[in-house]
Amino acid sequence: MDKSAETKFSLYQQWGMLPELALEAHDLLRGDRGGEIPGVRLTEEVEDIATVHTVTVLNSQGSRIMQKPEGIYVTIHCKELAVNHHGILESVSNLVTKHLKKFITLSSLEAPVLVAGLGNWKSTPDALGPRVISQLMATRHLYGKVPDEILEGVRPVATIAPGVLGMTGIESADIIRSAAKQIKPELILVIDALAAGDISRIGTTIQISNTGISPGAGVGNQRSGINKETMGVPVISIGIPTVVKARIIAHQVLESFWEQLHQRPQLSRMLKELPEPTVRNLMQYALEPCQHNMEVTPKEIDDLVQNCSTIIARAITRTLHPDMNEDFAANFF
Amino acid sequence: MDKSAETKFSLYQQWGMLPELALEAHDLLRGDRGGEIPGVRLTEEVEDIATVHTVTVLNSQGSRIMQKPEGIYVTIHCKELAVNHHGILESVSNLVTKHLKKFITLSSLEAPVLVAGLGNWKSTPDALGPRVISQLMATRHLYGKVPDEILEGVRPVATIAPGVLGMTGIESADIIRSAAKQIKPELILVIDALAAGDISRIGTTIQISNTGISPGAGVGNQRSGINKETMGVPVISIGIPTVVKARIIAHQVLESFWEQLHQRPQLSRMLKELPEPTVRNLMQYALEPCQHNMEVTPKEIDDLVQNCSTIIARAITRTLHPDMNEDFAANFF
Amino acid sequence: MDKSAETKFSLYQQWGMLPELALEAHDLLRGDRGGEIPGVRLTEEVEDIATVHTVTVLNSQGSRIMQKPEGIYVTIHCKELAVNHHGILESVSNLVTKHLKKFITLSSLEAPVLVAGLGNWKSTPDALGPRVISQLMATRHLYGKVPDEILEGVRPVATIAPGVLGMTGIESADIIRSAAKQIKPELILVIDALAAGDISRIGTTIQISNTGISPGAGVGNQRSGINKETMGVPVISIGIPTVVKARIIAHQVLESFWEQLHQRPQLSRMLKELPEPTVRNLMQYALEPCQHNMEVTPKEIDDLVQNCSTIIARAITRTLHPDMNEDFAANFF
Amino acid sequence: MDKSAETKFSLYQQWGMLPELALEAHDLLRGDRGGEIPGVRLTEEVEDIATVHTVTVLNSQGSRIMQKPEGIYVTIHCKELAVNHHGILESVSNLVTKHLKKFITLSSLEAPVLVAGLGNWKSTPDALGPRVISQLMATRHLYGKVPDEILEGVRPVATIAPGVLGMTGIESADIIRSAAKQIKPELILVIDALAAGDISRIGTTIQISNTGISPGAGVGNQRSGINKETMGVPVISIGIPTVVKARIIAHQVLESFWEQLHQRPQLSRMLKELPEPTVRNLMQYALEPCQHNMEVTPKEIDDLVQNCSTIIARAITRTLHPDMNEDFAANFF
Repeated sequence: MDKSAETKFSLYQQWGMLPELALEAHDLLRGDRGGEIPGVRLTEEVEDIATVHTVTVLNSQGSRIMQKPEGIYVTIHCKELAVNHHGILESVSNLVTKHLKKFITLSSLEAPVLVAGLGNWKSTPDALGPRVISQLMATRHLYGKVPDEILEGVRPVATIAPGVLGMTGIESADIIRSAAKQIKPELILVIDALAAGDISRIGTTIQISNTGISPGAGVGNQRSGINKETMGVPVISIGIPTVVKARIIAHQVLESFWEQLHQRPQLSRMLKELPEPTVRNLMQYALEPCQHNMEVTPKEIDDLVQNCSTIIARAITRTLHPDMNEDFAANFF
Repeated sequence: MDKSAETKFSLYQQWGMLPELALEAHDLLRGDRGGEIPGVRLTEEVEDIATVHTVTVLNSQGSRIMQKPEGIYVTIHCKELAVNHHGILESVSNLVTKHLKKFITLSSLEAPVLVAGLGNWKSTPDALGPRVISQLMATRHLYGKVPDEILEGVRPVATIAPGVLGMTGIESADIIRSAAKQIKPELILVIDALAAGDISRIGTTIQISNTGISPGAGVGNQRSGINKETMGVPVISIGIPTVVKARIIAHQVLESFWEQLHQRPQLSRMLKELPEPTVRNLMQYALEPCQHNMEVTPKEIDDLVQNCSTIIARAITRTLHPDMNEDFAANFF
Repeated sequence: MDKSAETKFSLYQQWGMLPELALEAHDLLRGDRGGEIPGVRLTEEVEDIATVHTVTVLNSQGSRIMQKPEGIYVTIHCKELAVNHHGILESVSNLVTKHLKKFITLSSLEAPVLVAGLGNWKSTPDALGPRVISQLMATRHLYGKVPDEILEGVRPVATIAPGVLGMTGIESADIIRSAAKQIKPELILVIDALAAGDISRIGTTIQISNTGISPGAGVGNQRSGINKETMGVPVISIGIPTVVKARIIAHQVLESFWEQLHQRPQLSRMLKELPEPTVRNLMQYALEPCQHNMEVTPKEIDDLVQNCSTIIARAITRTLHPDMNEDFAANFF
Repeated sequence: MDKSAETKFSLYQQWGMLPELALEAHDLLRGDRGGEIPGVRLTEEVEDIATVHTVTVLNSQGSRIMQKPEGIYVTIHCKELAVNHHGILESVSNLVTKHLKKFITLSSLEAPVLVAGLGNWKSTPDALGPRVISQLMATRHLYGKVPDEILEGVRPVATIAPGVLGMTGIESADIIRSAAKQIKPELILVIDALAAGDISRIGTTIQISNTGISPGAGVGNQRSGINKETMGVPVISIGIPTVVKARIIAHQVLESFWEQLHQRPQLSRMLKELPEPTVRNLMQYALEPCQHNMEVTPKEIDDLVQNCSTIIARAITRTLHPDMNEDFAANFF
């Protein structure tokens, strides 16, 4: 592991800028020189339309270094999630389905699942979760009311969009937990908009994980954890970065510029004589216009959220109801 | 009580057309001849901009006759709820506040309240509840995070829009009950769109009641009860009629026409010879184009729901936070 | 032609209740006894999922009787336009495409077309036009900016949603005419929500006509005509009934009841002795609760408008760009 | 004028990053050393809740240097436009009214005005214009239909939201010009979302100008000019920055860092030896992750656009109808 990368990682942590995507945390830790991180495994698959990385946090050592719970984090990277093209949308949705299926083991087709869409539907960059929910059709209540043959291949699914603490006065985690007590699902699926650690991640990345949502994650902040410990059943999370701190954008450019300067032979020696804290201070000063809590989102955010919620809603439906009657399925898509 | 009115009432019950407004049930039972209904009391107040009727179902006899739970039902009738005029809107809101306050006794300003907006935000005539919620600001989570002086006069309020069974797969009552277990409110306020028993009620009427929501009530149907028995704490409901059965519109006209015919001396005798069931059958036949489940709403429904949700949201805020800091209140209105 | 039907027709005209659909005007005029209307031709085709009637107003005599401009009116009647089922939606859309194509003759694939969506997007029952526009992709501006091979089979299409007089202060017809002066289209397509003459028409009927929009038609009223005379180029209109006068619903039931009474042998003779004006007066009195300007729409109006706008948008795209590149088409559907 | 500022200005121009706000262009040109720009005058007023700068481009020399048309540009800078507080919103609206009034001279209260809201209502950061329009009430069509005493103090106003070229296939300028031909307004008011030259301008700045909209301005690009030359009548524009290029954010930080480095005595001399083009290249390289067309908007964009459209709509109403009947005004606010 790269020593200076580790320093930078702890600096980012101090600044409240640690990436929410496990893959970004991993990249940050490895720095430029690469190398293995103890207790963490990374694999890569190249698909037609996407590159898929799997970060596995294997043990408590990996968890401590990465500042992420033990578990599996699949990151699907695909150039253009924000493009309004039904063919692309369908291909990405199928790819997400393929990877989501690997995360899900349920005792039978009768095992109920609860899908929770986190976030604030009144704020476009945070509306991914509620939008997915509004595109899903719940099926749990149909049992006993609709002929059995129609429900062949259909799992009992309930959905909830708990809103955000600032609007409801109730923690999302509390609402989901109490709904789960009613429904007794075998699994909870949580969808959330994430803050990226790099502007290039926005509109290009979907993360699926079996670790649920950690405290403090998400576009809105200070959330309680939604995971196996707090919910009592496995929690699979699907997250899509929609915002990034302006400070992160600028800091990356500063770092890159700083590196460039070092490559000028005449300058390199003198720059290296500057003490690390001095450099940090100079950068901090330059970064001041980018206030710590200022997060930005691309101008195309409406299309991005719309397309991503369609992709995710379809992938969830295909995953949870694998053999649905085709005619019944036409009510969904 | 009018005998023929009672027959008509039981007919309406049989047809699934019993009015959701207590005042309408009362009017229906009394028929044209008026008179008292045993176990039920009616009072009337005339205000500047509205007439206010209070129906009190005093005992089990009244409850059985009215097919409504024992309790108090206040009906505010005001010509133009759908008018886009801020002055009118403000006056109606103040009137609702005045009457809502009479329903609410809480042990202290610290006693938490849960406000639940029933209905489907994707269906305009059923969106009243969720729209009220989206205009309310929750305050429960501010305690301990915001300076005490700002929260002076502010009650801890949490809000929830549980959606509808057909979209979530979960009974609204179940979601509200489990949220209530978390929050432990001293009172639950429920807002719902109602089905009227008369087209003239739509866009003109607000009902406040201390009996909660009965099973089957509301624009969407087959709901579980949300009341003191099921929730464990008092439930105050605010309902506004937004739809009416097409069959009810037509039936009223038929009845009125039938009465007109009876007033023709030559006809009266012969019409009276027609056996009651025959008349009912003739009417039923004529009513066939109005299918039983066909409910309609005025063309102006978008404005109606928008204005009513503003009226209700303001009345709730004024009732629950009576002495709110003026500067803080500006965040709400 | 039925004499009493003619009387009823002129009565409806007097009440401002003449049907906007040509087929309804035709049915009303023919009454129960059927028969031909001079200067008007009716044909019927039965398709898999729909019945298609074509009313042709052949000459000025037909036009005067029908109170409709000379031209062709195709009415597609299909049980469930409001059903959320993608298969049904696709079939209906293909059927509309088939019939719309018959109306459209353009000199070449380069001939520009202007599509105008009338109505008020803030009022759900009147939002059909603007919703269709928001689902269409304009192509006129792509010429010269996008490689020719992509635009193969793509016609230059411009779109406009002129809003309503009450919101903009400008007649829709004026906005469309001045846009047409800029664009010089060879054809204008107009989409509008209509008022039905029968509740059973709502959510079941699509009318295509080559007569454009007549003054006074549409859910909002008092519009100027949008037709070949006012626009200078052919105007094809697509209309879907979304509202109906409450008075029409009730009047139909009254008429049917009145007929039933006549079938009682003892009554028939006496009822016939009542002078026609007396009967009309009795009916008018009974109809009073249904105010003249009160229009209603089904509770399911949101789904209805959503589905119909998708059907129409797809049909328009398929009609105007018949041989579009498949990959390019994926940007539309 | 600062020589290096001028270099930077032409660099920004080359990069397509020239600020849309005149005040920003002015600041950029003056650089750190300040000084006067020939042909341009700047004045500053400090108000209770805002600072107001007036940039006057006096002649063709000023226009050439500033790359802005001759005319007056008032910039209202107010910390928190995005705050949801009705009192603040009202104060800002009054301030905008005060300054907007100075721009408007009309021959009489009967002189008609056309208000045009540019932008795409389906894209939140570009939806300001259409949102203002949806909050304005047109009055032009009321003349002759509403009693004269109600219209006392009410000017004939028409509104239009022309959409964007990419959605309609028609240039906004063309639609506005042809509407203007119909309405013959004495003045056109245009509202548009702008691209800022500095992240701190977003959610804090309103620009009023008598120069209309220049080609290429606005959040969407490649627009035709909307000004006195193209419209034939004076055009007043109101613009609010809602997006900023990510590259601009990063570049400002880089520049600031570069300056910091120069203040290290040991480094200063060596850094100065680096040729200007080399420095530019190093910066360009570092800026690469921020693609040229990547524009970002704050996470709080929904609230920002909502509040700003309310502020602008109220200011326009107060400015155009100065002595409106209070009861009539209640239909607007």
